[in-house]
Amino acid sequence: MSSIAELTERVRAFAEERDWERFHTPKNLAMALAGEVGELLAELQWLTPEQSAAVMRDEELGPRVRAEIGDVTIYLTRLADVLGIDLVQAALDKLEDSGRRYTVESARGSASKISGDYAPGS
Amino acid sequence: MSSIAELTERVRAFAEERDWERFHTPKNLAMALAGEVGELLAELQWLTPEQSAAVMRDEELGPRVRAEIGDVTIYLTRLADVLGIDLVQAALDKLEDSGRRYTVESARGSASKISGDYAPGS
Amino acid sequence: MSSIAELTERVRAFAEERDWERFHTPKNLAMALAGEVGELLAELQWLTPEQSAAVMRDEELGPRVRAEIGDVTIYLTRLADVLGIDLVQAALDKLEDSGRRYTVESARGSASKISGDYAPGS
Amino acid sequence: MSSIAELTERVRAFAEERDWERFHTPKNLAMALAGEVGELLAELQWLTPEQSAAVMRDEELGPRVRAEIGDVTIYLTRLADVLGIDLVQAALDKLEDSGRRYTVESARGSASKISGDYAPGS
Repeated sequence: MSSIAELTERVRAFAEERDWERFHTPKNLAMALAGEVGELLAELQWLTPEQSAAVMRDEELGPRVRAEIGDVTIYLTRLADVLGIDLVQAALDKLEDSGRRYTVESARGSASKISGDYAPGS
Repeated sequence: MSSIAELTERVRAFAEERDWERFHTPKNLAMALAGEVGELLAELQWLTPEQSAAVMRDEELGPRVRAEIGDVTIYLTRLADVLGIDLVQAALDKLEDSGRRYTVESARGSASKISGDYAPGS
Repeated sequence: MSSIAELTERVRAFAEERDWERFHTPKNLAMALAGEVGELLAELQWLTPEQSAAVMRDEELGPRVRAEIGDVTIYLTRLADVLGIDLVQAALDKLEDSGRRYTVESARGSASKISGDYAPGS
Repeated sequence: MSSIAELTERVRAFAEERDWERFHTPKNLAMALAGEVGELLAELQWLTPEQSAAVMRDEELGPRVRAEIGDVTIYLTRLADVLGIDLVQAALDKLEDSGRRYTVESARGSASKISGDYAPGS
């Protein structure tokens, strides 16, 4: 698997070659990220949960979903780069935090929809 | 910089230990991703572009923005894992696509706001 | 049902009394709207489609979903006001557009997931 | 200004004529709403705050922004209808709530970026 560091450099070079840095404020990049996540949701919105689980086997939808995941990743990487944040380390740190808040015992036992035990970091 | 592969495994283990896989359909994970991107936007929404560029130096906002980037990355990683997509490769492939559509010459010369020349992949 | 016009004036007054107009650029309001939609998604993300259909009967989730719908509506109304757009008329015009593109006959007959026949305006 | 009640009925009829009700679970509609908000953000993301304030005067962007506002409103209206929520009343109630939390005196005096005094309902 190629590295995030390599992707980060390529996205940075892509923007610099085109003289786009002035557009790449954190606000703008966050908006762009939200826009691409919206496009990803649009590919899945009318599918049942089961259809969504099989989407990558669909000849038309599979490539589109992959392209949207690609766009989301490009913007997330660029935003983290502009903010000077190590993406993966920030995620690992947050996961550790969540691990303390949602221990395995309490998460397995509780079916509470209120406490946010359904997901890391929620 | 730690690797995406390592993060992917840790997020997968985190979910499995808590028996959360049944909640992790692509639809649900895409919704969760959008929710976390929303939280990230909320941290930046009232800042001026200049304030947003300096946000990581702020003692209160800096850590919060980093935590949200962490959450977004966790969900993006988990979603890609469940879909069987290599995050970084999908991004590199999309970047290459965009490179063909928005060549350096045309992107630098054109100030068109309509053609999407402002950003990779738009 | 109270009117959108009345809501628009109250939201405007709310902002003016607090001297918030300078924060209410269309970009900022669009980000705030996305943030609130994210909060709405977060309330529904782990529910099954059936659970989501019954959510308003839940004593805890019902009021929270209603509050998020309220927040989304507040920001959408404020954004439309700042842009000088008549919300309802813009929606009616778009619906008419969509009606021409997705006629009843073609929409009922086709189960195509590709053509966007699943929803108005997609 | 046409009423939300009229729009609600037209959107409902639009969906029923095309036999789309089975796709219109609250989860799906919330995802569709997020998708359209994403499209709206995409129209504004590279503009400066000042350019965004003038966007409706732009011959190309103005109509596109108006169309996206229309789409967002269509989905919000449909979602509220399916959930049995009075959109405008939910917003008025939330505004009243926010009015109690962010009084005029405290909001005008405080420039705190931490307390959420920048916006109603945040």
